[in-house]
Amino acid sequence: MDMLWSGWGDPARATPLPDSVTGLLRDLLGVKPRDTEQVALAEITVPEPALDAAALRDLADAVGGESHVRTDAEARVRHTRGKSTPDLLRIRAGDVESVPAAVVLPATHDDVLAVLRACAEHGLAAVPFGGGTSVVGGLSPELRRPFVALDLARMDGLLALDPVSRTATLQPGLRAPRAEALLAEHGFTLGHFPQSYEWATIGGFAAARSSGQASAGYGRFDEMVLGLTLATPAGTLDVGRAPRSAAGPDLRQLVLGSEGAFGVITSVTVRVRPVPETRVYEGWRFDSFEEGAAALRRLAQDGPRPTVLRLSDETETLIGLAQPDAIGSALSESAGCTAIAGYEGTEEDTAHRRERAAAVLRDCGGTWLGEEPGERWAHGRYSAPYLRDALLDAGAFAETLETAGFWSRLPELYAAVREALTTALTESGTPPLVMCHISHVYENGASLYFTVVSAQGDDPVAHWEPAKHAANEAILAAGGTISHHHGVGSDHRDWYVREAGPLGIHALQAVKRQLDPAGLLNPGILLPPD
Amino acid sequence: MDMLWSGWGDPARATPLPDSVTGLLRDLLGVKPRDTEQVALAEITVPEPALDAAALRDLADAVGGESHVRTDAEARVRHTRGKSTPDLLRIRAGDVESVPAAVVLPATHDDVLAVLRACAEHGLAAVPFGGGTSVVGGLSPELRRPFVALDLARMDGLLALDPVSRTATLQPGLRAPRAEALLAEHGFTLGHFPQSYEWATIGGFAAARSSGQASAGYGRFDEMVLGLTLATPAGTLDVGRAPRSAAGPDLRQLVLGSEGAFGVITSVTVRVRPVPETRVYEGWRFDSFEEGAAALRRLAQDGPRPTVLRLSDETETLIGLAQPDAIGSALSESAGCTAIAGYEGTEEDTAHRRERAAAVLRDCGGTWLGEEPGERWAHGRYSAPYLRDALLDAGAFAETLETAGFWSRLPELYAAVREALTTALTESGTPPLVMCHISHVYENGASLYFTVVSAQGDDPVAHWEPAKHAANEAILAAGGTISHHHGVGSDHRDWYVREAGPLGIHALQAVKRQLDPAGLLNPGILLPPD
Repeated sequence: MDMLWSGWGDPARATPLPDSVTGLLRDLLGVKPRDTEQVALAEITVPEPALDAAALRDLADAVGGESHVRTDAEARVRHTRGKSTPDLLRIRAGDVESVPAAVVLPATHDDVLAVLRACAEHGLAAVPFGGGTSVVGGLSPELRRPFVALDLARMDGLLALDPVSRTATLQPGLRAPRAEALLAEHGFTLGHFPQSYEWATIGGFAAARSSGQASAGYGRFDEMVLGLTLATPAGTLDVGRAPRSAAGPDLRQLVLGSEGAFGVITSVTVRVRPVPETRVYEGWRFDSFEEGAAALRRLAQDGPRPTVLRLSDETETLIGLAQPDAIGSALSESAGCTAIAGYEGTEEDTAHRRERAAAVLRDCGGTWLGEEPGERWAHGRYSAPYLRDALLDAGAFAETLETAGFWSRLPELYAAVREALTTALTESGTPPLVMCHISHVYENGASLYFTVVSAQGDDPVAHWEPAKHAANEAILAAGGTISHHHGVGSDHRDWYVREAGPLGIHALQAVKRQLDPAGLLNPGILLPPD
Repeated sequence: MDMLWSGWGDPARATPLPDSVTGLLRDLLGVKPRDTEQVALAEITVPEPALDAAALRDLADAVGGESHVRTDAEARVRHTRGKSTPDLLRIRAGDVESVPAAVVLPATHDDVLAVLRACAEHGLAAVPFGGGTSVVGGLSPELRRPFVALDLARMDGLLALDPVSRTATLQPGLRAPRAEALLAEHGFTLGHFPQSYEWATIGGFAAARSSGQASAGYGRFDEMVLGLTLATPAGTLDVGRAPRSAAGPDLRQLVLGSEGAFGVITSVTVRVRPVPETRVYEGWRFDSFEEGAAALRRLAQDGPRPTVLRLSDETETLIGLAQPDAIGSALSESAGCTAIAGYEGTEEDTAHRRERAAAVLRDCGGTWLGEEPGERWAHGRYSAPYLRDALLDAGAFAETLETAGFWSRLPELYAAVREALTTALTESGTPPLVMCHISHVYENGASLYFTVVSAQGDDPVAHWEPAKHAANEAILAAGGTISHHHGVGSDHRDWYVREAGPLGIHALQAVKRQLDPAGLLNPGILLPPD
């Protein structure tokens, strides 16, 4: 099934906002119904592909025939940009400035190498495409030359499973639910459940250092990866001979997060774990975000560690966004912050961790809300992007951004980003609701995930730009990282350059020159041109 | 206190072998008393330093005065090579081919930058020197030009402690016991206890990806590192803004394991943990290495995880090397393998983990041996290098090497390395004792640490070379990594090049060219010349 070209997910699952929410948006944020219709897919005109016959022939040869090179308008529109709110607003307006010249579908690692050779030969850029779910411009290269979308959908297999070592080798185009299904046949799970779970791919998780909602228990995706194969214009790079090694820098960690700038990830060997016997999610109430954050910190530092651990701030709790299915329903409840704690594993281990964690949470001021809020969260955990589509349809603007920092600076980071978003959007005449949650905890710090909802303004893309800019500046000033799990793409690149510093960027550019001397991979994504 | 120049550690702690062991070496391995005396430090003649007055002046200016640039013979001999057995045999024979031209002692990051500028100016190489404990030739550069030993001993402070985030920023020349003492004043521990603990430094741990004996509980050193500052010939690189990030490749993991080839680590920010309330170590007996390894695997994969977890094979158990203080005492016991399990933490957590782990170990065939073997191991945990000195003095050859691999291939790796060492040394006329233990476990694999003892042969350095070569070949052929925690240095470099592959090495050389364009840092260590 194809993703909705102009929004998120399965078109059959799109649901309009309830009238109560529409009223709320109008009364609270001044949201007015949109007065422009979105264009239809068939109405979008794309420029002729800038590929001559020789290029098309070489690309077709690279991937086993013409049927795996698509130049029709629909395929090209479906591979235009990703799924950030500005991406959706642009494509809904028929803006296909970033359209690929063709969509190329390799079936093997050698196909990918051949595609890269063909691109080098014909002066084309190449942009790897997995689930197409980037929200940071990871599919929006610089447009100095035409580019092909290198869609990895045909590379969607489980290549190897080692039940003794508990490792699995997966192809990059494998979507997460299919990966879980293949692993479940052997009794294993990857345990990686980001909000994009239903559509995102293994290669994308690795390329962008994804982190899932169960990261407290299963770790981040980059922590799961034991080996990678990378097809680069200079040849093949295989990394990861042992679980851990003192043989030089960890090259896995150079490939992870490289976002297609060094090469195309063609296989990923990951740690897998037994499918848990049991899963239970529950809600906890704290009087304030500060109190709840202290409780999360204590569990992250002293344990026991739940599998899922998240905390919504007062605004997110009030609005009920912690449970997208129930937006608005919590408005009448007293203030406070909802935390979700989830436990997965064996019956015995789960019961023990849950009991001990409950004692800690109570000791930190938490009140148990039962399993109902937890189950509601679990039920709606992949729904937020659908909700965003409905909000956009209703004339609202909705976008998210995220960061991470050390515990001691987290309050400052939280306040600075909220303030930046609120000030910028208020100055633009559309005072926003800014909500936040902590969804990934570490011994030394945590992530912050912000959701912003406001009226759209006359030009919603331009309208968001100063707010995003202000948030990025606030993140850097308050010691946060420009991205905890969305990645850099083209949207964060200029701030990433400041975060990594000149020597860090020069070192990565040196690697890129070595592996991709013609600079054909993802130009301008992650790294600025040399 | 200075390390023994010709061996390990505190000269006052050197103890000769008991007669029983000397007899054992003679009867079992044909070890004969040495017929050559080792040279005295005062007898060693070093060549005149190849530094002109301008170079010495610039180096002195870089580090705040002449008193911090040493060119006397003793200082230079003490900075010649590391502590591998061939290193010791060479220095004991008065071989100072690898002597530095001078020893330079910077006090600050800016001093280090200035030293690197002076080296570039005067065509000198620079070799960072921490504890001087490398066992892989990490202090033996190529000798095409003179080099200075960049001794970080003056940079030995605790720069910052963040009790909320539980992080500490340490200087590179800080020795581990002093780091623990400084952290303990604040109630924290690093939890990093490698065999070199008493002498090795924070910078060395980071540069070589050290792993300590309590890695099952505290993690490897590279897992503890949250940030680093690197002084390079091209300037300063600061990495690590957040505990975890999706902003590009993890540059920390590019610096970790870089062994001074990219720059000099001038500060390390690490995760710290509360000093444990309690520590308990105990022994377990398994019928075979295979059975014991299966038990370790189960704890590593399904938990609960002890803080220390190690298993000696039949030979190591028999010889009693698991407890260096008691070598030979176990010879009369029935065959089997001894495991050590240690628990550190709060009283409650330790008791719970210990009880559950005991059930697992019993279920896997283990027999509890009580705390005595555990306490004996803990008491002797840093003694093995002293024992090696005594063995060398007695005319025996003793050396160690280590690797790691995935669980499913570990039996093959174990057999292949044993076979390679045994065959090579037997062919050389000195059949060895080859012992092994697992001392670091992961969900997906484990380390193997081999100890080899044999008679010395006429030229002990040359005598070891074919065996080490055969072991390295066996490691690569059986899917292991050339080093789990000792590093690459110059000794493993040629195998590392094969392990990392041409593109991996080219990528790292590209980084080196960028950060160290004159190639003055550690030439030939880690990376081959371009």
